[in-house]
Amino acid sequence: MSTLIPCIVAGGAGTRLWPVSREAMPKPFMRLADGLSLLQKTFERVAGLDDVTRLLTVINRELLFRTLDDYRPLNSGRLGLDFLLEPMGRNTAPAIAAAALHAVRHYGEEAQLLVLPADHLIRDQQAFVSAVARARDLAEAGWLVTFGIRPGHAETGYGYIQQGEALEAGGYRVASFVEKPDLQTAQAYLEGGEHLWNAGMFCFRADVLLRELREHAPQVVEGVERCLALSGAVEGKQGKQCELDAPSFAEVTDISIDYALMERSSRVAVVPCDLGWSDIGSWQALRELTPADANGNQVNGEVILHNVQGCYIDSPKRLVGAVGVRDLVVVDTPDALLIADAHCTQDVKFVAQELKKRGHDAYRLHRAVTRPWGTYTVLEEGARFKIKRIMVRPGESLSLQMHHHRSEHWVVVSGMARVMNGERDFLLNTNESTFIPAGHSHRLVNPGVIDLVMIEVQSGEYLGEDDIVRFNDIYGRAPAGEKSN
Amino acid sequence: MSTLIPCIVAGGAGTRLWPVSREAMPKPFMRLADGLSLLQKTFERVAGLDDVTRLLTVINRELLFRTLDDYRPLNSGRLGLDFLLEPMGRNTAPAIAAAALHAVRHYGEEAQLLVLPADHLIRDQQAFVSAVARARDLAEAGWLVTFGIRPGHAETGYGYIQQGEALEAGGYRVASFVEKPDLQTAQAYLEGGEHLWNAGMFCFRADVLLRELREHAPQVVEGVERCLALSGAVEGKQGKQCELDAPSFAEVTDISIDYALMERSSRVAVVPCDLGWSDIGSWQALRELTPADANGNQVNGEVILHNVQGCYIDSPKRLVGAVGVRDLVVVDTPDALLIADAHCTQDVKFVAQELKKRGHDAYRLHRAVTRPWGTYTVLEEGARFKIKRIMVRPGESLSLQMHHHRSEHWVVVSGMARVMNGERDFLLNTNESTFIPAGHSHRLVNPGVIDLVMIEVQSGEYLGEDDIVRFNDIYGRAPAGEKSN
Repeated sequence: MSTLIPCIVAGGAGTRLWPVSREAMPKPFMRLADGLSLLQKTFERVAGLDDVTRLLTVINRELLFRTLDDYRPLNSGRLGLDFLLEPMGRNTAPAIAAAALHAVRHYGEEAQLLVLPADHLIRDQQAFVSAVARARDLAEAGWLVTFGIRPGHAETGYGYIQQGEALEAGGYRVASFVEKPDLQTAQAYLEGGEHLWNAGMFCFRADVLLRELREHAPQVVEGVERCLALSGAVEGKQGKQCELDAPSFAEVTDISIDYALMERSSRVAVVPCDLGWSDIGSWQALRELTPADANGNQVNGEVILHNVQGCYIDSPKRLVGAVGVRDLVVVDTPDALLIADAHCTQDVKFVAQELKKRGHDAYRLHRAVTRPWGTYTVLEEGARFKIKRIMVRPGESLSLQMHHHRSEHWVVVSGMARVMNGERDFLLNTNESTFIPAGHSHRLVNPGVIDLVMIEVQSGEYLGEDDIVRFNDIYGRAPAGEKSN
Repeated sequence: MSTLIPCIVAGGAGTRLWPVSREAMPKPFMRLADGLSLLQKTFERVAGLDDVTRLLTVINRELLFRTLDDYRPLNSGRLGLDFLLEPMGRNTAPAIAAAALHAVRHYGEEAQLLVLPADHLIRDQQAFVSAVARARDLAEAGWLVTFGIRPGHAETGYGYIQQGEALEAGGYRVASFVEKPDLQTAQAYLEGGEHLWNAGMFCFRADVLLRELREHAPQVVEGVERCLALSGAVEGKQGKQCELDAPSFAEVTDISIDYALMERSSRVAVVPCDLGWSDIGSWQALRELTPADANGNQVNGEVILHNVQGCYIDSPKRLVGAVGVRDLVVVDTPDALLIADAHCTQDVKFVAQELKKRGHDAYRLHRAVTRPWGTYTVLEEGARFKIKRIMVRPGESLSLQMHHHRSEHWVVVSGMARVMNGERDFLLNTNESTFIPAGHSHRLVNPGVIDLVMIEVQSGEYLGEDDIVRFNDIYGRAPAGEKSN
């Protein structure tokens, strides 16, 4: 059978899981109770398939380093890592078309793609492996294969797939795709037994996908082809990396693969399956993954309850006292708190949307900001000063830079730093400090083998992140701009 | 008429107003929307009385400097400030007995005391002034005068005073004191018109109080007399300060003035009044002081509401998103969060009690800790390091001290510091820093006229607040112990 290339597609803002999911750290990076992110769980899912040697990830270019951070501890080197880096989201049809074109170009026309959302949960790996095997047989026979989850309840939040006649190669022809139903219809689907949840997972041969897409949505393929012709591709040590050209990608039709193709093609099949699947579409869906105590409460963190029932309280860092409340979802982060009725957690997206409208930082960023070299966290800001905790991973470094308006005190609290400060180049050990006057070019490297943790006290008239002149940047970022360090 | 000495008695932990009210910063220090604390409002109340030249405050000795901080901006020097400093709470009878003995000793047998709780609110100052005038007439005639608030609703949370026959000197004889009633009884009291709320405010001549107390609760007076004989008194520049002797005060009977005396004496009168009074006994009581919006919400801070009704959300520092919730009280502080049903806010005390039982810091302290010289706030703690923001008020200083196990980096971010570091004595300006190695004696002074703000980065094997050797302490604290700096 042809080569299988799993393709993890990360899109969507995950606004219903604010304040943990934010634009710069969206839902795929949310960690569950076992410490793994949804993206890591998706990685492990594909790594658990036989014969897979290469993973293609389609993700926003801002999230590349974060993604590599998540893959690093799981990938022993067995999987080559290809990336298609999107400058902005254009929905699933362009992303999948790009993946298919990438596969045809590098791995042959008959390469099979297994498209998986980056932020779903599948608890039954064995069932997943079997379903993929069945899907591959159908794909080999020229079908566009969808995965249909057998419904566990009358869900109104998902689209449904109606299964039609049984196919020789296994599975079923798709009779129709159905939009999110009302409760009565969903109930009828549940009882009828021929409607399945559309999980947004697909398997197909790259050539079949492109042929069908050229027939039903030619503008998508053509747009993506134009974009790929203008995009720079590099062969990295782990795999092929292609950063999609922004102006031409912006012009590709913004459309889902369901609308563009699946609902139109006659070559669509479905593999019914029971995978222990969840799209974790809300805090309520997330909490249902973990058992509750005798009062129906699920608690993470230091929480004192008095006469509390049916509450989910996630507060890893701060003490919470709850008194007399029922059926609440409480999610605490260092800079923002969510309190929602457990029956309304779908509406959390309205809070995130309002923050986006206001241009509020808490839509985009967490207090701890991830950078290619590590993280920084603003501990306190005041008139003329700002205090940051900076963590630099072993072997990483911040670009040589200079600030016009601020000086910086650095105190190493853990690990070892190598500092270039003006003309001097020296090592700074734990519990040592240095002072970088405004106008001095400086550079920070972690030459050691453990994390470097530093406290930076900035002072000056102006402390905006855009007061930075970068003299070089090993991560390929602009010499000056909105990003810090 | 005899001299009037207002006497503010601060006791009680205010646990129903956790997490803002804590042991080291209890309810009297809570600030309302106008920026004044309840204690400051009480101060202004007595400062607004004619002929008052001296205020006596009975308060826990740990709260003296915090109290002076609150009085300072309000007292132009017109009021002398006497203090009786309690080593621990022994309820109101010992506190009032000590106040009466203090008054007799320094201001004559016939001095009148006006006893006011430190944490109540009175919105009608003119009615208060009139009620005090009537109470003084009765006190002069030898009555122990209580203030009876005309009930506005059938409250089950207060004790009641039943008024008896009218007295020649004004007011009424007290027919009886009644414990907190059930709702039906409270309703009957409201309709009957002869029951008043017991506000815990009193007016009497010191000699009358002591005579009656010697008759009905002699052990209280004798215990307090023994204690005062052993207590050190100093004549400060603002008034007389007496720190009550701890071992002997601990042996005084723990009893309220109501139980010890008012319910037993036949010389008790009541002045009925309408003062716009509230004891702010819960978050729900507090929120009722401010108007709500069209959805019944009261919000302080950056809050995004979606389909929210009847909620009080106080979050001065962090963003809150609320979705689909009803009738909640949410109070956010840097280290602890309260979420309570609006109908259960009396039960918040159970959370505070549980924290006390566990010996949790959030029962006793806020993240920002008040010291005689200013404040400090722990910004972050980790293995082998701790970062504090330190604010020193103009002219104040930290004691000369030394730590065995930690070194400290100091960076001045605002104001000017004078630093003694080992043998050196120098000025440190804004944006300058110094390093204090472990074992070096050091001292910090704010020689300037604006607040000194410093970031202190501590590092070492052991960073407990008890690693301190104090060589002298202008605030009279122990050379080593649990207090920092």
